[in-house]
Amino acid sequence: MTQPLTSERILAAAEDVLRRHGPQKANVVDVARALGVSHGAVYRHFASKQALREAVTRRWLHEFHTILEPIDEPRAWIRALSAAKRGTARVDPELFATYSALCDEQSAVVDEHVAWMVGQLEAMVGDKGRPLLQATTRFHHPAHVHEWSDPEIEHDLERVLDLVLPPAQ
Amino acid sequence: MTQPLTSERILAAAEDVLRRHGPQKANVVDVARALGVSHGAVYRHFASKQALREAVTRRWLHEFHTILEPIDEPRAWIRALSAAKRGTARVDPELFATYSALCDEQSAVVDEHVAWMVGQLEAMVGDKGRPLLQATTRFHHPAHVHEWSDPEIEHDLERVLDLVLPPAQ
Repeated sequence: MTQPLTSERILAAAEDVLRRHGPQKANVVDVARALGVSHGAVYRHFASKQALREAVTRRWLHEFHTILEPIDEPRAWIRALSAAKRGTARVDPELFATYSALCDEQSAVVDEHVAWMVGQLEAMVGDKGRPLLQATTRFHHPAHVHEWSDPEIEHDLERVLDLVLPPAQ
Repeated sequence: MTQPLTSERILAAAEDVLRRHGPQKANVVDVARALGVSHGAVYRHFASKQALREAVTRRWLHEFHTILEPIDEPRAWIRALSAAKRGTARVDPELFATYSALCDEQSAVVDEHVAWMVGQLEAMVGDKGRPLLQATTRFHHPAHVHEWSDPEIEHDLERVLDLVLPPAQ
């Protein structure tokens, strides 16, 4: 019995290909091979290599949205964002580096992700949402992954939160 | 008439070598060749390739210190830091990328640079100095160079400064 070929199955296979072969290999031919299907079958779901790479990047970023969506207090939200990024990088540093490289190339997908995060924060703190996200860049932007193993990182985040979201507010 | 071989002449030559050949070439043999001297003559000033690479990185970062040192108001200081980094990246993007790569490998030199910046800010705002520098990371850390061509970058910095250094303070 063969499972139906869904977009979700293709994206899960694409993540496996990324994990094993790095960011260059997230293309239709390699993913079709991993699934044992024709590349035509994959093209029916993703019209191009670019569409597949966008979708796999969006799926990764969406996992963070799922964690953040229920949180409605800005300090807790920023702490959760930082902890989720750091945790993901710690558990599988190579896959994190692979997705970071994909994000560097998929700027439209990253713009959507940033706009989503700004929207969440704006619902909590109004027009301070965007500067609040930017002021905590060091604690969630993948470019700073090498600073996240610093034992002071959580303490540093608390100090920045005290500055940008003073408890008296 | 030959000029005396000073450390400063060696470091200026090392920057020329970096500009022409990228970060891998900042070594004693290439710099000695560029100066037309023996590598023994360079070793009398810098005992190893590592010492030379540290010194050339430190010299580059020191140029920012020279700009910042006279400024004693925290908003003006952060604006000057951000403008100096952005300006340097805009004038010679390749040399900026080369020095960024050197900084990535010379973490002790970068730690000194960060400690110097924190010290400057602490003299102005006390123990808010360190979180203030971290909250403005996006606007001066070389990892964000690709965001600096955004036409909103200066506006974004002002919004973050309003958050971290409210005018009423």
